[in-house]
Amino acid sequence: MAASASIAGWEQLAASKRDAVAAKIPSEWRLPSSLSSQISETSKISVLSFPRESKILTEKELDLTENYDATSLIELMSTGKEKSYDVTLAFCKRAAIAQQCVNCLTEIFFDEALQRARQCDEYLEKEGKPIGPLHGLPISLKDSFNVKGVHATIGYVSFLANPPAQFNSALVDILFQAGAVFYVKTNLPQTMMTADSHNNIFGRTLNPNNLSLTAGGSTGGEGALIKMRGSVLGLTTDIAGSTRIPALCNGISALKPTASRLPFMGKVAPGRVVSPGSVLPAIGPAGVSIRDLELLMKTAIDSHPWHYDANVLNVPWRKVEPPKVPLRFGLIRGHPRRPLHPPIARALHTAATMLKEAGHTIVLLDDKIPDLWETALLTWKMFDLDPKKTPKQHVNASGEPWVPSIPTAAFAELKDWVASLNELWDTNLERAKILNTYRELVVENKLDAILLPGYQTTAVPHDTFGVPIYTMLVNFLNYPACILPFLKADKQSDAPFINKDANYEPPYEPEKVEGAPGAVQVMGLPMMDEELLEIVKVVEQVLVKG
Amino acid sequence: MAASASIAGWEQLAASKRDAVAAKIPSEWRLPSSLSSQISETSKISVLSFPRESKILTEKELDLTENYDATSLIELMSTGKEKSYDVTLAFCKRAAIAQQCVNCLTEIFFDEALQRARQCDEYLEKEGKPIGPLHGLPISLKDSFNVKGVHATIGYVSFLANPPAQFNSALVDILFQAGAVFYVKTNLPQTMMTADSHNNIFGRTLNPNNLSLTAGGSTGGEGALIKMRGSVLGLTTDIAGSTRIPALCNGISALKPTASRLPFMGKVAPGRVVSPGSVLPAIGPAGVSIRDLELLMKTAIDSHPWHYDANVLNVPWRKVEPPKVPLRFGLIRGHPRRPLHPPIARALHTAATMLKEAGHTIVLLDDKIPDLWETALLTWKMFDLDPKKTPKQHVNASGEPWVPSIPTAAFAELKDWVASLNELWDTNLERAKILNTYRELVVENKLDAILLPGYQTTAVPHDTFGVPIYTMLVNFLNYPACILPFLKADKQSDAPFINKDANYEPPYEPEKVEGAPGAVQVMGLPMMDEELLEIVKVVEQVLVKG
Repeated sequence: MAASASIAGWEQLAASKRDAVAAKIPSEWRLPSSLSSQISETSKISVLSFPRESKILTEKELDLTENYDATSLIELMSTGKEKSYDVTLAFCKRAAIAQQCVNCLTEIFFDEALQRARQCDEYLEKEGKPIGPLHGLPISLKDSFNVKGVHATIGYVSFLANPPAQFNSALVDILFQAGAVFYVKTNLPQTMMTADSHNNIFGRTLNPNNLSLTAGGSTGGEGALIKMRGSVLGLTTDIAGSTRIPALCNGISALKPTASRLPFMGKVAPGRVVSPGSVLPAIGPAGVSIRDLELLMKTAIDSHPWHYDANVLNVPWRKVEPPKVPLRFGLIRGHPRRPLHPPIARALHTAATMLKEAGHTIVLLDDKIPDLWETALLTWKMFDLDPKKTPKQHVNASGEPWVPSIPTAAFAELKDWVASLNELWDTNLERAKILNTYRELVVENKLDAILLPGYQTTAVPHDTFGVPIYTMLVNFLNYPACILPFLKADKQSDAPFINKDANYEPPYEPEKVEGAPGAVQVMGLPMMDEELLEIVKVVEQVLVKG
Repeated sequence: MAASASIAGWEQLAASKRDAVAAKIPSEWRLPSSLSSQISETSKISVLSFPRESKILTEKELDLTENYDATSLIELMSTGKEKSYDVTLAFCKRAAIAQQCVNCLTEIFFDEALQRARQCDEYLEKEGKPIGPLHGLPISLKDSFNVKGVHATIGYVSFLANPPAQFNSALVDILFQAGAVFYVKTNLPQTMMTADSHNNIFGRTLNPNNLSLTAGGSTGGEGALIKMRGSVLGLTTDIAGSTRIPALCNGISALKPTASRLPFMGKVAPGRVVSPGSVLPAIGPAGVSIRDLELLMKTAIDSHPWHYDANVLNVPWRKVEPPKVPLRFGLIRGHPRRPLHPPIARALHTAATMLKEAGHTIVLLDDKIPDLWETALLTWKMFDLDPKKTPKQHVNASGEPWVPSIPTAAFAELKDWVASLNELWDTNLERAKILNTYRELVVENKLDAILLPGYQTTAVPHDTFGVPIYTMLVNFLNYPACILPFLKADKQSDAPFINKDANYEPPYEPEKVEGAPGAVQVMGLPMMDEELLEIVKVVEQVLVKG
């Protein structure tokens, strides 16, 4: 798969790819130098206003990209009130701007997208009905999804030698048939196993709220693009937090569903497939509203993804009613090895308090759950089971170096650990015990969901993110979870939440993260993705819309 | 877990256990010597008439045990037309007779059962309603299920040192709450990995149709007990065919569901838990009617087994309508390494012909599926991943020898094979490819189910069963499958099906198997256990009831 690229010099190959991508942005969509000159990965500015300031989009295009979620855009397009062409053009422009601001894209195929959008419009006109539930909607994709005719290098220089995809990923096929328009793929980290979306082909994605902060990973390109409103709905993947970390870093919503509900068939993997580990990856949507996450899940699962991928559970998407209130929430407030920084301690405390005041019950779980650090170590072992070290081979094949965050995103305790078949049995047994404990806690306390941090702080400076133990817990358990943006870092409000005894990791530097988005993570119960989304709507109503 | 038993001499310990079990049968329920003297593992007689001939049961008890399925018995008991006490007493007597005929039991707890049955009757009288959907029904259990206060040695002499169970298995708890009455546990092979239900504690279970034939395994005790009508519904487990092999050997119905629908929590395992292999065991019901298999599944899953066991999928049991006919069946007629013996070639051919004549479509898959022998080898590798060889340790702990069938139930090709983590990745990849091929075949041919042999022949002489490649395929795929008894070995009718070029394995010896039950296996689609049972009802209507 990975032909040797080192002959031509990896830097040259990567630069040439970057140039080819940049050339896909028409000159009239280029940022004025008054804006572009402000952009650097050390600048603390927010670029969220740049699309408007750039004057590249019309007022109507600004409106279409800023004031609607996917559901409402589809409604407009399906009823002929707006053309998919116009909507797609608006998002192409805005994605082009986002790319110039935060470097969030890997592949650009605006021409194909506009052609597809025209097809959608023509279909509606001719047939008098929409193509499907996603009629005409531009959807962005993590680079690892295959789109026929488009590269999927996933940031490995060695993968530049691969030809463009000969076929669509199963999920791309499914969403296309439902009416989606694909126009960009988005950036991700080398190996996908670090939270800085940075690789040697496409470089680093920046956080649009504050360019000096990470956009998160591994689906960081999606997180930044959606926050810039260069997309309202995107496809992500998550085995340790890759859907949720970019969501919480950038301030958008995302769902990591129960594994095996959406199809991986036809995706490009950063390592060896099919792992014998018991912690499974999941594909999930990221977006700007909870109902959009639901729309994506329902549309995909209604399309019988098990017909495309034998690993997808043949389990229908259930229509569920809003939950009976009041609800019962477990609350996990963290682990001393990764204590919550004041902005997130405040967000979680405020969320729990508001839910309690709204009549819901909060059950504190901190003293009842197995040690979170140990659980994270077990989880990480499951990611390091390949004796062939395939990701390393992919990197070495081109001579490219490791990106700087790779060493920070691993457990020092496991530096010299070598996987063995024998230990895998033991690890599975440890996992089974922990799963059992959570099951008992949920049943005994009649919990509807569990509230916990998604990460110990907001987005942090580049290359300092470290190991994401709070998202990893969810993958370990294979429960579904949503990230809901909530509050922002505000050193004055956060000050009362400073714990002088805490050993903050990475360091708590209030000046550096001021204004960065906060978030809470809401974890549902296995296979109850449907119920989780309804519960998150209740939480959102209390915290944000109430 | 396995304390050393060798100090006391394993033979003595085992004999003492057998005596204790035998002592649980009241003297008035002992077979007359006119019958018992006929019983031996080399005799070719059927003992199916012995319960009636023994005159131990009243006419009413004969009627209750012979002429009803579980559903109709529960109906009688739930409406007060029959007492659970009377029904339970009848099945206790008949199980005692079965035990003396075919040695199918491991644990007997008639007194506790009769007491429980009284409770059920009193509950109905007092509350005016049944305890639950299994009100008062005697249910038999494979020895590996834990019943509080009862041993679970699963045939390892070393496990005799373990104390009686301190708790019920999760599924036992669930069925108890639904109204079940437990009265016996049933025999199984040493290690559970051979098809002769034979171990050094309880000895060998015989086939009630013909004592010189195997009762199958690993749930052979259930198969023989149910065929003797000493039970109408029993719990089995299946990782290579252990639910289905006894069903086809004895001539009863059984379902191996999709894995992870019924809870293993609290069961006793013959080896190390939790395997990193990707072929999973499943618990399933065996019985005398398809609707009873459905009743068991529905009752268990309606009880939220995921509240008891984190490995159970939180997926409701769906109420499905009878399928739209005509149906589309794939047909697999076997592999040259294990060609179908004439009785099963005839059964399968006749079934396919009758289904076709009834208007259904048959799609021949033999040339389209991956090599079945290679698939079986991959499956077997998944069973041999434990570097500690835990089952061997359990055997060696007491000094007991291996039972004779163990070496016959393994692949010669894998004799010197040693599992490794690296190869497990490759094996998973091979499995993924095969799963994908079957998925494509099902989708492209719009198959509702696949008809295939459960085994290449009927029950065979003891210790000659060998490797069960046709049941293993189903575990490998993790599809659900039912065994439906159909036709019997009849050398005259079978003669036209003799293939002179076939290398029958074990040898085809028509005299030895004359009259043994035939069967077909109907494999459904993953997670569509509900639909499979409805499809099997259609098949049964055409083949048996039509």
